[in-house]
Order: sequence, then C-alpha cells, then structure tokens
Amino acid sequence: MAQQRSRLSPALFLLVLAAALLAPVPGLAAQARNIILMIGDGMGPSQVWATRLYAMRELGRDLRMVELMNRGRTAFLGNDTLDAIVTESAAAATQMACGVRVPARAVGMGPDGKTPCKTILEFAGEMGKKSGLVTTSRITDATPAAFSAHVEDRDGENSVAAQQLRLGVDVLLGGGRRHFLPDSAGGARKDARNLLDEARGEGYALPTTGIELQRAGGARILGLFSMGNMAFDIDRSRTDEPSLGEMTAKALEVLGRNPKGLFAMIEGGRIDHAAHGNDTAATIRDVLAFDEAVGIALDFQRRNPDTLVIVTADHETGGMALTGIGGGTAINFAAIRGARSSLETLLAELAVTPTAARIRRAVSARLALAISDEEAKVLAGESYRKDTTQTYIPTPRSLVSILQRHLGVGWATSGHTASPVFVFGAGPGSEGINGFRHNTDLFRMMRDALGSSGVKIQ
Amino acid sequence: MAQQRSRLSPALFLLVLAAALLAPVPGLAAQARNIILMIGDGMGPSQVWATRLYAMRELGRDLRMVELMNRGRTAFLGNDTLDAIVTESAAAATQMACGVRVPARAVGMGPDGKTPCKTILEFAGEMGKKSGLVTTSRITDATPAAFSAHVEDRDGENSVAAQQLRLGVDVLLGGGRRHFLPDSAGGARKDARNLLDEARGEGYALPTTGIELQRAGGARILGLFSMGNMAFDIDRSRTDEPSLGEMTAKALEVLGRNPKGLFAMIEGGRIDHAAHGNDTAATIRDVLAFDEAVGIALDFQRRNPDTLVIVTADHETGGMALTGIGGGTAINFAAIRGARSSLETLLAELAVTPTAARIRRAVSARLALAISDEEAKVLAGESYRKDTTQTYIPTPRSLVSILQRHLGVGWATSGHTASPVFVFGAGPGSEGINGFRHNTDLFRMMRDALGSSGVKIQ
Repeated sequence: MAQQRSRLSPALFLLVLAAALLAPVPGLAAQARNIILMIGDGMGPSQVWATRLYAMRELGRDLRMVELMNRGRTAFLGNDTLDAIVTESAAAATQMACGVRVPARAVGMGPDGKTPCKTILEFAGEMGKKSGLVTTSRITDATPAAFSAHVEDRDGENSVAAQQLRLGVDVLLGGGRRHFLPDSAGGARKDARNLLDEARGEGYALPTTGIELQRAGGARILGLFSMGNMAFDIDRSRTDEPSLGEMTAKALEVLGRNPKGLFAMIEGGRIDHAAHGNDTAATIRDVLAFDEAVGIALDFQRRNPDTLVIVTADHETGGMALTGIGGGTAINFAAIRGARSSLETLLAELAVTPTAARIRRAVSARLALAISDEEAKVLAGESYRKDTTQTYIPTPRSLVSILQRHLGVGWATSGHTASPVFVFGAGPGSEGINGFRHNTDLFRMMRDALGSSGVKIQ
Repeated sequence: MAQQRSRLSPALFLLVLAAALLAPVPGLAAQARNIILMIGDGMGPSQVWATRLYAMRELGRDLRMVELMNRGRTAFLGNDTLDAIVTESAAAATQMACGVRVPARAVGMGPDGKTPCKTILEFAGEMGKKSGLVTTSRITDATPAAFSAHVEDRDGENSVAAQQLRLGVDVLLGGGRRHFLPDSAGGARKDARNLLDEARGEGYALPTTGIELQRAGGARILGLFSMGNMAFDIDRSRTDEPSLGEMTAKALEVLGRNPKGLFAMIEGGRIDHAAHGNDTAATIRDVLAFDEAVGIALDFQRRNPDTLVIVTADHETGGMALTGIGGGTAINFAAIRGARSSLETLLAELAVTPTAARIRRAVSARLALAISDEEAKVLAGESYRKDTTQTYIPTPRSLVSILQRHLGVGWATSGHTASPVFVFGAGPGSEGINGFRHNTDLFRMMRDALGSSGVKIQ
C-alpha cells in the first residue's frame, strides 16, 4: 500500500507541474507585485503603424511597443460606453479604472455618473502599494483623473487636484499647475488654496523643470511642468520640460523602492491633441515619446519580473488614414522627420496677418514642405486664431487636405472615432490579453493580478 | 530494475503529455491536415468593429469572427510591400501566398515581379491535398489569382483563368465567367478558347446559380455565377447568386472528402469594393456575409480538429472611421439596417436625369434616409454615370459627406490605406499568431503547419 503510494507520487507531481504550467488556468490569475498601465490617448492602429514605419525607415530601429507585442500578448479592444459608441477620454479611462460601463464626461463615477466607483489605483493603495500618475497633458485631465478622483464632470479639474493630494497619490507628474494654485497666484482655483504649499507640507518634492525632476529625491513627488498641457514633444526642445520617458523613469525609480509594489498609470496625453489637430508629424513624435516610456517600463519589468505591463489606448482620434500621396502608395516620412514644430505653433504664428508669401515661408520653415502658390493662396483665405484657452487649435480643413496631398496621410475628422484599438502586455496577469476585449476587462485583469486571494473577481 | 522502470513509466508518460500540451514548442510546428485561409478584402479594424456593433445592436448576436478571436489567437498585421506602404490586393495576396515581399500588381510572382513564386496552394497540392478558391469578386481577381496563377500584371485575368484550370484547382467558386468564355460567346477571351467546355471535359461540374450549386456533386466544381463580380450582398436578393457562406459550405463539403486534407482560400472580395465606394451599409452587409462564411469554417473545424483556420484582411480600404453623427457619439445603425441597396445601385439609378426631388425619393427608398432639400440640391449638382466596366463606381464626395452627417460614419479616401489589419485564428499551426506580424509571415505559418518534417522553414 505504502509502496504503491510512493510509486504514484512522481506522476502526481508531474500532473501538478503540468497544470501549473498550462496557463491561463480558469479561475486563477497570476500575481503581480507591480502594475504599469500605459495609455496612448487617441493612439489608434494607424497611429502605431505610422510611427513604426517612421521609426524603421527614418530612425533605423523598431518600436519598443513592438518588442512588447512580440514577446507578450496582443488583443483588440472595444471602448463603447454606457451612452456612446464614440467615447471621450473620461468615460474610457473610468471604464479601465473601475471596470464598469459609464456615461460620458464623468470621472471615477459609476454607471449613474454620480456615485464614486472604486478605482484600481485605490485597490492597489489598500494593498500597501505606492501609486503614481504620469502624463504629458494636465495631471488633472480626464485620463489621470479617472484613476485618482471622483467628479461628475471632467471640467472639475480644481477638485481633481485636491482629491489627488487627499488620496495621497505618491507621484504626480505632468502639466496642469494652474489647478493647484489660487487665482491670486496666477492659478485657476477660486478657493484661495495653494495646493503646492499644502503638498510641500505633506513632504512632496516639487520640481518644475526637467533638471529639477532629475534631482528630486524622497518618496513623494508632485512635478508640474506647465500651467496647462505640457508641450507637444515636437515643440519640447524650446521648453525646459522633461520628456514622458524621463518622467516615467523617475516615477518607477521612486515607486519601485516600495517592497509591496506599485501601481502606475503612464499616459501619452498629447497624442490625442496632435491627432485632434490632424497634425501627422506631431502625432508621430508624441507616439515616439510614448514608445520611449514603454521601453523604460519594459526595462523596469526586466529588473522586476513580477510586474504586469499593459499598453493600450483609450480611443482613436482623427480617423487617421495612411492614404498615400495623391492616391499613391508612398508616405513622405522625410518631410515628417523634417518638421520643426507642431501645426499649433505654426497656426499661432499665422494668426498675425497671414499673406500667401508669409504662409509659404512659414510652411517651409516649420514643416519642411514646399507648397504651391495656389495652395498658399487657399491658406491665406482662412482665418487663424491663437486661442490659448483651448486644449487644441482646430486646423483648417484646407490645410489638412494640402498636407494629405504632400504627406500621404489623411484624417476623417477632428474628433474621436470608435475604431477598435490595440491592447498588448506581458507579465503575471497578462493571460487575459487575447481576442476581442472591452476596456472594462482591463480593470478585471489588473484586479485579478493584484488579488491576494487568487480568486477571479467578476 | 524492471520494477524501477515500471515505477517511472507513468511519470514519463505525463512528461510527454505535458510537453505535448505546452504549445508552442519553439522550432516545431503543429501539423494541420486542412488549412482554411479567409481574407476579408479591404476589411480593416473599423470595418470589423462597425459590423460587430451592428450585429450586437441590430441583430442581437455577436460575430462568429469574435468567437474565433476569443478562443483562438489574435495579432496585428502589417502589409507593406517591396515598393509600397499602401498596398493593392495583388501584392498583398502574393505576399501571403508566397511569403516574400513583392512589387505592386504582379500576381504569384517573386520580388522581381516576373519569376513565379511557389504558392501555399501549390505546396498543398504537392502533398496530395485538394484545393479550393472561393470569392464574391471574380475568381480571376488579384486575391484568388495570387494563390493559383503567375502573371506579371493583375489585369491578365484571361491567363489566370487558364492557369487555374491547368493547375487543377478542385473547387473554383465566384464571379468572372467572362474570363472563361471566348468573345464569340460574350466573354473576354481573344484566343477563342471556351474554358467552360474544357473544364466540363476535365470532369468539373459547372453550376451557374445558387440552386445549381446546392445540387452540384462530384469532386470538382467550377461555379461562376456572374460575368464580372458577384453582387454586393445587400443587392444579392435581386439575383440568383449563392451567398459566400453557401459557396464556402459547398467547397468544404467537396474538398473535405479527401483523406489527405485540403487548402482553401475564402475571400470576402466585395467588402473592398463597397469600401472603395465609401458605402457603409454595403460594407457592413458584406462583412456580415464574410462572417457567415467564417462560421461555416469554424463548424467544419469543430468536426475536423486537425484544421488550421486563419482570418485576416489584405489591407484596409477607405479609411473608414466611426466618427459619430455630427461630431457626436452615435452611429445610425437603424438606417444602415434599413438600406435596401448599395450606393452603386442608387448611383446607377441617378444616372437618369437626377433632379433634387427624384434624388430625395431615391435616397429615401434605397437608403431609408430623409435628406434635406438643401442636401438634395447639392446632390443634383453632381454628375452620375452608370459605368459597368469599372470595378466600382466612385461615390461623389458630396454624397459621402451627407451620409457621414446622417450615419455617423466617415471615410478618409476612396482608395486603400496602410492601416494595420487584424489576424486571428485557431487550430494546429496557429501558435505564431501573436504580436505584430507581417503578411509574409502567414505563408510561413501555413507552410509550417503543412510541413511533414515538423521543422520550421524560414
């Protein structure tokens, strides 16, 4: 009897081994100490592919995102909401943060749009994990806000700022300083609170430039590098702002010291704005900046294999289409590489008496494109405004058409589209990245990866 | 000693079992007796997602494609060619059929555009497998041609027809009868050959309607249901043509009798044409027809688990973008469901003296849309032509814009785009469907799945 039992035990051992190796095991999820969720705002399939082609043909290298796709798991992601097929960022981010379908514009609120939903960042915090939010748009903008605050309308950014500090998010890096400062100090707050002073009292370091960020120590950082959005990456050299990659590296360095792990949401926030402006060069440069941040997350994962990295987008913006020049088959990547500034910067310049000659010169200097006299005359007929209150300055359709003719990249809209986006990732808990997923599924994947019980939460 | 060996044998058995279950094993590919490659011509991510939303919201069911995605493997697919970022169908199909980057317009030719490359269908034939090609466009059109013929320009469809019969493809179902008939019999052949008569002599059944197809027996079928392309699925009820699903079922029934297995390429050929015409309703209906064919392949796979099913697209067409109505968040799926005919049929009708009143009536009757007097007047200013020699009749941009306003679906171009497409599949040999693939990889996946040596071919 005893002998028979001993005879079976190696077989039993191997059965258990086989079962353990045959992931995904239904009802069980692998555990992750760290979770890094990376969101390219507005980064649809064409934005990724255009950037990959640009990187391979102009820079002679592949994307770090493709490295992740090829060694990790890949899936398609739908993003319709409770009330919309074409989503905006607040609902999309809340759906990822809380795992339920929600209405437009509410931030961190459940299906009724007014009852707070517990976010994955809050779950992680309860488990003793450090948390961080990084973006190139305002830290109080819809995407980071949805993980760290609860407001009925995404415009309530002053409230978001106060909630982010009350919640004690350990690292906050991005733009949006105006929502932390009272109007007396040039900020947007009407309540006379100076959240920067309050944060200093709570032990936060407060870098305001890339250099200061590099030097920042301590366990908590509130780094706000711009009153509103940070610069498009294509315009960044004219500022003292850090790159998305530099912010990501600092966030992971600081949060990574915690033995219980971290949750970080890293957003390429201005990809969306560049795509709203139908600005091909600025879009590709911001996707490249996002890709650099993905590479930093992958390097962190290599040193910390108990890290789940998920990369996705909240939605596609612009209906970007690589149409080819003149209905042909080429894309003018050389001109895209030659572009010296965003269309926003160009348009602000054109707001001052645009003549055809001036426009030709500006397009040549800024975009490295030689447009015809006829095209310049069409552009001279448009009205330009320098509107600093807007998130983005709309690009005249005539300029979009002319650029499509020269670059081979077209745009179907200046708004969002419902194109499905890519999701890909690697690390413990990434088993569910397969097939056609919905963005609410990402919450469950992350929650399962965190879950101490090992039981799948529905 | 003998006792010790018997003690270890269940352990060894389980080790082998575990190794067999732990796919993918690097350097080894699983073997497939049958391969079914399904290509939605022009079916980009937005085409799939629009159709899925339509199916779920209007028909109360999910797509069979999504069933396959969720139980199989999913990846993103690039499709740039030797000489183009934006591909056309001949190069795209040749890259899948032969596994090498090739120039535009050549069919079944290698990188120099004039030396035949051995196609996956030819490899399969050498292994004793039966082969079939099914499409809703012409059976001699670029996609089916690239698997079964070698011509320097895709327009050489008369030569393609002769080569398909000479190669002995067992099942050929689709349109394009004109390329099998001499001009004396109303066909396009200048060489006086009647390939239909020749095929009959070789033992092919020759059905010409859906009913005749159902009744067709024997091991070889040449079913050509139209002189040119078959009808858009939305227009098919006014014809006696079989559906793509019916053709797929017959092809698999006939080829599936072969003990050595089959290779079949099934194409939703007119999705591309509907998208060239920026025709949302016709596009969605043709994707649905393709989805039905995918379902039939999946049912075949259930009965024959040694079947590899791969579904993908050759490229995206139209830069289709779900933009929402008036920059909003809704898509008018009810009107898409109400559409009674393709834009092509509508435009052919409008070629006869289009007045604003007549246009309003036609749009209401054909598309179930009430356009305004102003919109009708804009449309009355366009010129319409009924051009039966073209693959598709271009839709006036004014009509595309008006439809975008009413349906919430926009189009960036009437041509192809370089948007990456979806690839997904299940069955032995599907292990390589992950990450960001290139369409040339599909050849290697299929070849590995066929390969008798079990050694990966690079």
